[in-house]
Formats: sequence, structure tokens, C-alpha cells
Amino acid sequence: MLAIFNLTAKAFKPAANIQAKHFYVFRQHEERTVGKVIVVQKYGGSSVANTDKILSVAKRVKKAAENAKVVVVVSAMGDTTDDLLTMAKALCKYPNGREMDKLLATGEQASSALLTMALHELGQPAISLTGGQAGIITENKPGNARIQSVDPQHIKEELNGGNVVVIAGFQGITDNVTWADITTLGRGGSDTTAVALAAALSADKCEIYTDVDGVFTADPRLVPAARKLSSISYEEMLEMADLGASVMHSRAVELAEIHGVNITVAHSVREVPGTMITREDQNMEVKNSVRGIAHDTDVAKITVTSVPDQPGIAYKIFHALAKNGISVDVIVQNISLEGVVDLSFTVNLSDLARAQAVLAPVIKEIGARNITSSSNLAKVSIVGTAISSRPGYADKMFGALADAGINIASITTSEIRITCLIDKANVQKAVQALHAAFELEKA
Amino acid sequence: MLAIFNLTAKAFKPAANIQAKHFYVFRQHEERTVGKVIVVQKYGGSSVANTDKILSVAKRVKKAAENAKVVVVVSAMGDTTDDLLTMAKALCKYPNGREMDKLLATGEQASSALLTMALHELGQPAISLTGGQAGIITENKPGNARIQSVDPQHIKEELNGGNVVVIAGFQGITDNVTWADITTLGRGGSDTTAVALAAALSADKCEIYTDVDGVFTADPRLVPAARKLSSISYEEMLEMADLGASVMHSRAVELAEIHGVNITVAHSVREVPGTMITREDQNMEVKNSVRGIAHDTDVAKITVTSVPDQPGIAYKIFHALAKNGISVDVIVQNISLEGVVDLSFTVNLSDLARAQAVLAPVIKEIGARNITSSSNLAKVSIVGTAISSRPGYADKMFGALADAGINIASITTSEIRITCLIDKANVQKAVQALHAAFELEKA
Repeated sequence: MLAIFNLTAKAFKPAANIQAKHFYVFRQHEERTVGKVIVVQKYGGSSVANTDKILSVAKRVKKAAENAKVVVVVSAMGDTTDDLLTMAKALCKYPNGREMDKLLATGEQASSALLTMALHELGQPAISLTGGQAGIITENKPGNARIQSVDPQHIKEELNGGNVVVIAGFQGITDNVTWADITTLGRGGSDTTAVALAAALSADKCEIYTDVDGVFTADPRLVPAARKLSSISYEEMLEMADLGASVMHSRAVELAEIHGVNITVAHSVREVPGTMITREDQNMEVKNSVRGIAHDTDVAKITVTSVPDQPGIAYKIFHALAKNGISVDVIVQNISLEGVVDLSFTVNLSDLARAQAVLAPVIKEIGARNITSSSNLAKVSIVGTAISSRPGYADKMFGALADAGINIASITTSEIRITCLIDKANVQKAVQALHAAFELEKA
Repeated sequence: MLAIFNLTAKAFKPAANIQAKHFYVFRQHEERTVGKVIVVQKYGGSSVANTDKILSVAKRVKKAAENAKVVVVVSAMGDTTDDLLTMAKALCKYPNGREMDKLLATGEQASSALLTMALHELGQPAISLTGGQAGIITENKPGNARIQSVDPQHIKEELNGGNVVVIAGFQGITDNVTWADITTLGRGGSDTTAVALAAALSADKCEIYTDVDGVFTADPRLVPAARKLSSISYEEMLEMADLGASVMHSRAVELAEIHGVNITVAHSVREVPGTMITREDQNMEVKNSVRGIAHDTDVAKITVTSVPDQPGIAYKIFHALAKNGISVDVIVQNISLEGVVDLSFTVNLSDLARAQAVLAPVIKEIGARNITSSSNLAKVSIVGTAISSRPGYADKMFGALADAGINIASITTSEIRITCLIDKANVQKAVQALHAAFELEKA
């Protein structure tokens, strides 16, 4: 148990002194005997969708292995996960989580073995490991397990033996025994595997290969002039990810921030530089502190009308939603009139029906009139470090939207973003207007 | 380690006194507290080829679970294994055995999870286990690993907890640690898993469900009058299996014989009684001691001509073949003439090219003239307990073939069979003639 790197949900921190010491010894040994850096590479499902693509990935991995010890994390091939889900749903209305995890985990186990075979064919020594074999222990929460610890000893041994180590992403086991259950990590699982391994191995690089070239100043499908960023801070990336930029799951970015893992996001085939996600530093492109325009069309607005204006009422509403795992954003309460107020907020579109069901009894209890909802809305945001402390940006944002004839339904801000709720039909116009107003096409 | 049941290749026997004692205690406990028998059922790939078929299997399992503790062993769905093999071959000319095992093992892991979900949908408590989770430890011989031990503790706990336990067939792990390698058992692997578990659990029944109704007196496709046997001895079944009756792999039958596991072979959908494979006993249908007519068309005959008639020459030939894992049958040596003999023998058709390559240098070394081969041959056999000790059967066999105008190229016998090598074109005629001569259509 010497080499366990603790990643519990409670405290994402290196576990103990013995841990730090062990890492120190290991890294010293590395530099003395082999002198190669450790690189973790992650390839998503579309990058390994068929045998031709697996071979392309193998060539890229082999090249990386010339100058580094390489750990590869792979997702399941293309539509494998969806196909397995379809079969499960055909057999069972509410499939058991444990069995579903076991079923889905086969996808990554298969792709890791196939990629390893492709590496062998290229003459590259390699070995595949399941999540369990790689020492990834998770909590026992099927379908959405968080990594509790990583024991990288087995990976290290294989790296020291000259192997590229190919890990089945998205999975772990619940305990360090052979009859432990297989778990999956849920959304963003393979990204999370890669970051957790990079942290546990003190890897020098963590590279996420995907089907986009990196993180852009806006969605290039909406804004042709959008520019790829060479770097972005964790915080900015989190805001971008939460607001709909689908490059990386925010969970993996959070884990990277906590452990100080620098991530490079790049295209899995095109050999062009990607975007580095890292701590904010002086070398970053900070001339313009608005870094990007994010948008999110999966938005529903809920309004609870005629809520008695009494202490504790808002708590009852939002506590009920939180208890059911429904995230709420952009909360607006109008001015009290005759002892009642209207309370509006947004939820993810996919949570709308559930939110209405959860709130129905609460409405009765608190004596509000009713619930109305709208799904014709979208969020557009400007994202950039310390944006909220510079009033000029909010001013410029509202002005640009007004000039484009776009009405703002509500506004929220965080330290590093300002978000406006607008009509869904105006999203492209809004993103283009804001991109131009902040001159994001310029480096 | 209390409950390990030793199945090493060297000695297929219960491991130790502590083992027997444990089993005793366990069975006592069973009978006292629950009183249900333990049944192991195995379903092959064609029985779980799609979700509809999986649901049918689930219904059958649920019915069995009304009166028994049920352990189910499943193969991979339909063509899954072939599909995975095709991908592997596309990526790598000579895929690594460890990686291949890991790839193929996903097929059974997936089908076991899916069958478990189907059982849940029917309201039947169930849990799936991989080979490793089920306590199946094998030797580290990828692609063809033999089971070394089974620790049935985990299965027993789940059975006692009221679950049907669905085991991924065909697989095990190399050691009792989480980073142990996944192995597959090779041909007949799922049958072998079922028999090994039945032995380790001291199961009351071991049922192999397949796409035939049982073991017949001859191949029903060749002999419409062929009759299903209600029981057959292990020895007879082994001769039938080795000679081409594809109902069960002989490896699993051997294991069953060693451990005294009674196997029932039956159709996975049609609810008709199958065939029990068991020890010979007085209740078996022994009026006619010829039980069946087996045939095998995958036969090649090799003749080494002008072999010097000296001691040790035959050894050199057959040792070379044995060393390369090539089984030899029906050996005939003609009478020495001028100090040389011709030596003929048969091999499996798929081994012919390899046998010729292996023998080429041996021929030179011993000074024989050359090697000729023929693949136009087939074997037909009569199989029945103690057949060779009753000369009347051989007489009747040769007479029936003669009456049908079929020439016999060579003859071999064992304790329980007489085999004739004949022209491949005459197989159906021969099997029909023999089936009629021994009146096997009559019960």
C-alpha cells in the first residue's frame, strides 16, 4: 500500500508523507536510470472507432514512446457504449447499476487490448490494463463512481520494463480484491482516468486527444473567425465547459486543477498544437482578459408565481431541487408586490420535467400560485479571469447585445464570467456580436 | 483459502482433508437452512445470440430457480467472439495471447451482465460474476489455460443470499490478485467452466443447454431414424465426442468423469428431456451394447513409404508428431519386405500440412523414401461399453459395410469402439448401414 495516491471525494490531496517520499524516490530513480519523461495520453471513442483509426492512434503513440514513457487511456470504440446500452434497455426497463457498469466496462477493455495489439504489430512493446489492474479504486456508486485512490505501482513496473501501458478508461473497481465490483466513472470518465493517472504518476504531460483542435474563443460552427487559444486557465476552462464547450468534462478539469496537472487538448489525427489548460500565469495571453464566448442552448427557465414573501420560502424551493440533484442557475426574484414575489431560475433542459415534478408539492406547501416554464431561452457568456472586477466588460457586453437588437431576460455573474439569458433564436447573432466586440479574432 | 477446490492438470482431485470437511459443513448447512438443491446450467453462444434469446434463457433460469439454487454459465453472444477475432487479426498478424484473452473475455462478461438484467426484469434476484470474481484460477497459458483451482466461496455467498449467480464462461484469472491476467480456457471452455463449478459446488445437477436435443445414436442429419439416448456413459461420450459428435467438448466430459459430475445435455429452447452423461450403471439402456454410430470426415491419412524396418524408427516418427501436439490415430504398418515397411496413420485434417512439415526432416534422418497423403477418407465407428470384448460386433460391423459395398482401408479398436477408415464419399451410406445393422432405431 506504499504507493497509493489518495483521490477521495472529500480531499483530493496526496495522501500522506509516505506517499510524497515514495514519489520522490521513484522520480529520482527514473531520472538516474532512464531519463525519460512520463506522458499520459487519452484517446476518445471517435479516435478509436474502427481498426484503421486504432492503427493511426498506435502510430502516434509509438512516436511519443521514442522520447517518453507513455501511458495511454482509451475510451470504447465509437458507438460501442451506445450499442451496449441499447441491448440493456431492450432487456430491462431500469437496468441495475452494477450490471450496467460491468456491461459497459467491456467496451474499454476491448479497445485497450486492440490498441495494444496494434502497437505490437508496429514493433512497440506494450501491455493493456483494466482499470482494476491499473490500481484504480473507486467508491461503490455504480454509473457515477468517483476515484478514491490510485495505486500506480503496476503501471510503473510496466513502464520501467519498457512497455507502453494502455489503460481501459472510464472504469475502476470497488476494492483491492479479485471479487471487487467493476465500476464506471460516469460522464467524462476517460478524461478523469487520464488526469487521475497523470496525478498519481506525477506525469510530465497529460494530453487529451479528441476530434477538435483545442479550445476556441467561441464555437467555430457559429463564429468562423473563432481563434484557437494556445492556453487557458482551469477556472476559465471550467466556465467554458459548464456553459456548453464540449471539449472536456469539467470534472476532469477540476481534478487537474486540484493536482496541478497541466492538460493539453489537441486533435487526435491532425498534428497541430492544441490548447494547454493550466494555472493562470504571466506568460498567458492576458492582453484581453475576455478569453472566450460560451453559449448553452440546453436551458429551461422556470418561474414560480406569487410566492409569499417570507423568510425560508426560497430555501424550501431550492433545497428540494438540490436534494434531487438538479442544478439551478440565473436566479431572479422580482420586487415584492402585495406580499408576494415571482421567482425565476434556469435549469438544464434535460432536468425540466423532473424539476416540475419535484416542485409540485412544494408549491402547494408554500402557498405559491403556480409554475410556468419556457424552453426558448439560451445563455451567452463572456469568460475571462477577473472579469467581474472590471466594470467596463459588462458595459461592453450589454452594449454589443443591444446594438444587435437582442433583449436580455436576466443576467448573472461569477468572478470570471458574465452570463445573459436571451432568446434561443438569437444565439448565433449574440455570439458573433460579442466575439467581434471583444476583438477575439485577434491574438 | 478454506474453500479452494483443486483442479490442477496434474491431479484433478479434491485438494485436501480441510476441503472435504468444508464441503461437508457447507452441505449440511444448506440442507438444514434452505433445503434447495444446487443446479449449474450452461447456455452456449447460439442460445444467447440476441436479446430475445437472452430473455428466453432468463425465463428458463427463473423457472429452475423456483426449486433450486441456480448457477448459470454463459458463452458470448452469437458471433461476438468471431467479430472480436476479426478485428484483432485486422490489427495484428500474430496477436499476443494475453491481449487476445483480454479481448475475447469481454464477450462473456457482457452476456453475463445482460442475462442478469433480463432476470431482474422478470423479478428474479440475480448477480453476474466474471471468471475471476467467481474464484476460477487458471494456469498462465493464454488461449488454452487449464483451470487450477476454484474457490466457490463468493458464489456460495450469493446463492445463500437468494441470487441466481450468472458466471461469464470460458475464462479465469492467473492469480488471486487484482492485477492478475485474464485468461481464456480455449475450445470447450464454457462447458469446462460449468463442470468445474458443478464439481467445486458439489452441485446436484449440471445441465448443458445447446442447440441440439441431446446425444443421438447417430447424426440425425445422416440418419433420419437416429434416436436420442436418455443416458450415455462418460467413456462412450468421449469416444462419440472425439469422433465428431459435436454436442460437448471431450475436455469437459473428462473433467466430469474425474469428479463424478452427472451432466444433462438438452435443448436450450425446446423443453424435451435431454441425454444424461454419467457413470455406467445397471439402469442404463444396455440391452444393445452398441450405443451409437460416430463418424468423422476431418481425417487425413499419411503414408511414409519404404521405412527401414529397424527398432526405434516408429518412435522417431511419432515422437516428432507428439512433440508438436499432433494427435495420431489408426496406425497401420504393412509386412516387412526386403527390410523396409510402409507406415500409415491418420491425423486431423487441420493438422495435415503441419504434420508434413514436421516429418520432412525426420524422413531424411531415418532414410525413408517419401511421404504421401490422402484427404479423401473418413472414420466410422460403432461405440459401446465393452464392445471390443465381444467379437460378434466386429463381425457384424464388417459384414454390414461389405453388404453396402463399402471397402475398409484400415481398422482400429479401443475398449469401447471399433473404427473403420473408409472412403469419404461413403460416409452417409456407412452410417445408415451400421445404424440399421445394430437396430439402433429401437429403444
